[in-house]
Amino acid sequence: MRVLDLIIKKRDGGILTTEEIGHLIAEFNKNNVPDYQMAAFLMAIYFQGLNARETTAFTAALAESGKKIDFSSLGLAVVDKHSSGGVGDKVTLVLAPLVAAAGVPLAKISGRGLGFTGGTIDKLESIPGFSSRLSVEKFVSLVQKNNLAIMAQTERLIPADGKLYALRDVTGTVENISLIAASIMSKKIAAGADAILLDVKMGKGAFMKNRDDAFHLAETMVRIGNEMDRRVVSAVTDMNQPLGFAVGNVLEIKEAIAVLEGEGPADVETLSVLLGGHLLALVGKVRNPEEGQEELLRLLKNGVALEKFKQLVVSQGGNSSFLDNPSLLPQAKFVETIKTTISGYIHEIDARKVGKAAAILGAGRFFKGEQIDPSVGIVLKHKVGNYVSEGDVLAYIHANKEDKLKAALKEIAGTFSFGEEVPEGFPLVYGVIPPFPS
Amino acid sequence: MRVLDLIIKKRDGGILTTEEIGHLIAEFNKNNVPDYQMAAFLMAIYFQGLNARETTAFTAALAESGKKIDFSSLGLAVVDKHSSGGVGDKVTLVLAPLVAAAGVPLAKISGRGLGFTGGTIDKLESIPGFSSRLSVEKFVSLVQKNNLAIMAQTERLIPADGKLYALRDVTGTVENISLIAASIMSKKIAAGADAILLDVKMGKGAFMKNRDDAFHLAETMVRIGNEMDRRVVSAVTDMNQPLGFAVGNVLEIKEAIAVLEGEGPADVETLSVLLGGHLLALVGKVRNPEEGQEELLRLLKNGVALEKFKQLVVSQGGNSSFLDNPSLLPQAKFVETIKTTISGYIHEIDARKVGKAAAILGAGRFFKGEQIDPSVGIVLKHKVGNYVSEGDVLAYIHANKEDKLKAALKEIAGTFSFGEEVPEGFPLVYGVIPPFPS
Repeated sequence: MRVLDLIIKKRDGGILTTEEIGHLIAEFNKNNVPDYQMAAFLMAIYFQGLNARETTAFTAALAESGKKIDFSSLGLAVVDKHSSGGVGDKVTLVLAPLVAAAGVPLAKISGRGLGFTGGTIDKLESIPGFSSRLSVEKFVSLVQKNNLAIMAQTERLIPADGKLYALRDVTGTVENISLIAASIMSKKIAAGADAILLDVKMGKGAFMKNRDDAFHLAETMVRIGNEMDRRVVSAVTDMNQPLGFAVGNVLEIKEAIAVLEGEGPADVETLSVLLGGHLLALVGKVRNPEEGQEELLRLLKNGVALEKFKQLVVSQGGNSSFLDNPSLLPQAKFVETIKTTISGYIHEIDARKVGKAAAILGAGRFFKGEQIDPSVGIVLKHKVGNYVSEGDVLAYIHANKEDKLKAALKEIAGTFSFGEEVPEGFPLVYGVIPPFPS
Repeated sequence: MRVLDLIIKKRDGGILTTEEIGHLIAEFNKNNVPDYQMAAFLMAIYFQGLNARETTAFTAALAESGKKIDFSSLGLAVVDKHSSGGVGDKVTLVLAPLVAAAGVPLAKISGRGLGFTGGTIDKLESIPGFSSRLSVEKFVSLVQKNNLAIMAQTERLIPADGKLYALRDVTGTVENISLIAASIMSKKIAAGADAILLDVKMGKGAFMKNRDDAFHLAETMVRIGNEMDRRVVSAVTDMNQPLGFAVGNVLEIKEAIAVLEGEGPADVETLSVLLGGHLLALVGKVRNPEEGQEELLRLLKNGVALEKFKQLVVSQGGNSSFLDNPSLLPQAKFVETIKTTISGYIHEIDARKVGKAAAILGAGRFFKGEQIDPSVGIVLKHKVGNYVSEGDVLAYIHANKEDKLKAALKEIAGTFSFGEEVPEGFPLVYGVIPPFPS
């Protein structure tokens, strides 16, 4: 089996066998396939695609490239949750303790964010003392003990995916639904979950800009999961405006706590409860998602989920005293207020621009390994559809450096647009796949 | 200008500027662009193509990557001839001394063959003492003195092309007309010729299997040449059956000598004179190709071209005594005779199979740098259209090793096909671009 022949086969529109894909990924993982051949192969895939069977084979081959986590000793279905990434998306911080509080073990392995804002790991690590660098043994034991652990992606799990992603990133081969789906699903498969909730963000601030791509990705991942004997539910949700009001690591931790205290933004609460309800139904903890949502709302209102969050923080080395005294979290030096010079209904809050401004402030990464600044970010005052009058506050910018503040203010110009009519707005959820059987 | 942005631009069907292409090739040549990025870029070109302006820019950038040869001191138009490669193609060995004998300086830089049989350089180097490793200064002075020199490609001329071709060869990106045309034309441009004859072989034994591709390549190269201020004529000629009877290095030298002595196969003589006539017309030495052909036939019949060939051999260190005593050339140990078991008209002599059998015997290379065996090969006894009776000789196999002979005999089975009717046969020439203005 020559690599060149496989490149040419795919280039010419051929369908690769499961063995061919397995061989290619395994040899690539052993550094026996040079990057230039893999780059040509990836570009051929970009143009010719992978069919369903090939995509599953690709996922399986990536998942096989390292150590897999095994939760079978728990005797319980373990769940995982993944978001394709959005601005202000702190749903995991709310959903994870909620689901765990409902008695369903949630084991999440998460990458560090690359893009507008930090990932879940970055947000949690803005809590003093919190560590996501767990051994696999510690991770499994925490899930067993608390029903909840969140650890950072390590090289030992699916090394081929990390190597492949690094190559895709510099060769213009990131934007392919099959490769994206295989990359995400291989990580979920290797991480050992039995049931997986996938939140595919769609809109201006998301990787998926249009409906077709978002649903195609959601459906592809559900299919891969099912073919690999996992229960999977996938939701396509809005990312045209930021989720909630806060964008930035510490700022999002604070907002997540507010949601767990029953005082957070409605969209974050609603989405967390809705997605969590599907997850509970997926593992048969409840009879349908609505019943799950009722249960989760109860656990939110009675403070049990907040206690679970506190347990997560403490059991991973964090200092939970910030829950009573938020000033213990890192705080930015300056808070600049942005006011509107226009009166009218807010028609748009461009999530991409807000995200980019937050990244400029230091809340996100422009390159892998870049240090992020936990305290900086943006707190919006409104959602699309609100009416504002001239002089009203639109947002607060939390910054530590004047030059970055200046650049962020420049970026944020044009984020908001206004109109005289009440805008149509965006639904929170565009669809759930597969729909729960009625 | 980021390489990644250029990859994505081409991937998405964009048209690159001349500056962008120039930058990319120049940086690649300086080892500042990693092979994996160039591989992805090449595969994107495979799918999205290069337009006319991009192809010329690509050619120019390759030609600029090393030293260029300058013949301006001669005060005469210097010509060059290139074949896309065919089985038994010894036309250069006949045409080059013919054209030089007509007073037109011909300066040819040639690569070593990779494929079924050796290239012109390999054939000439099967003459004892002959060397094609000339310095550029020696090359220019020989052209000035004799109107003729043939040297091997060196790394100093267009290094980027060598580097790029090596990468294309292992990444499935060889088969693109623009890249093929740019590679050939960049070498011709850097080699300093003012007028170029291109022989695009078409058929079973050629790289171009079909008419559309062959004419597309021929037209593309003429256009590139004209845009770079070169006079270019391109012919599409047959390569379904081998050219002449001999296939193999020494065997082809002998056949070329026979042609120069007026006793060679008609197809080799006709094609050499025909293409040479176009070259003479191209530089204005004669008023039209027909007049050029008459002149070349005269120089062939009167022995002047043979003298020119002898001069070529001697001035590049070769021992010309083989011209009187052919047994001084290397000879194979065995000569096996293949006879027909069928009576009928020969409908086909598959050039690809003959070429492959010759390569198996050792006449060609399967990988770069492989040593070739000058003495081995195949001498056919017939052309398509001949009538043979059971027991007639079809071909002689010249071999040095029994295992290779055995493998070659196996490969050559099925080369010939027969029928009861006189076959249609193949024209020698499918077309000339541009047609000579009448």
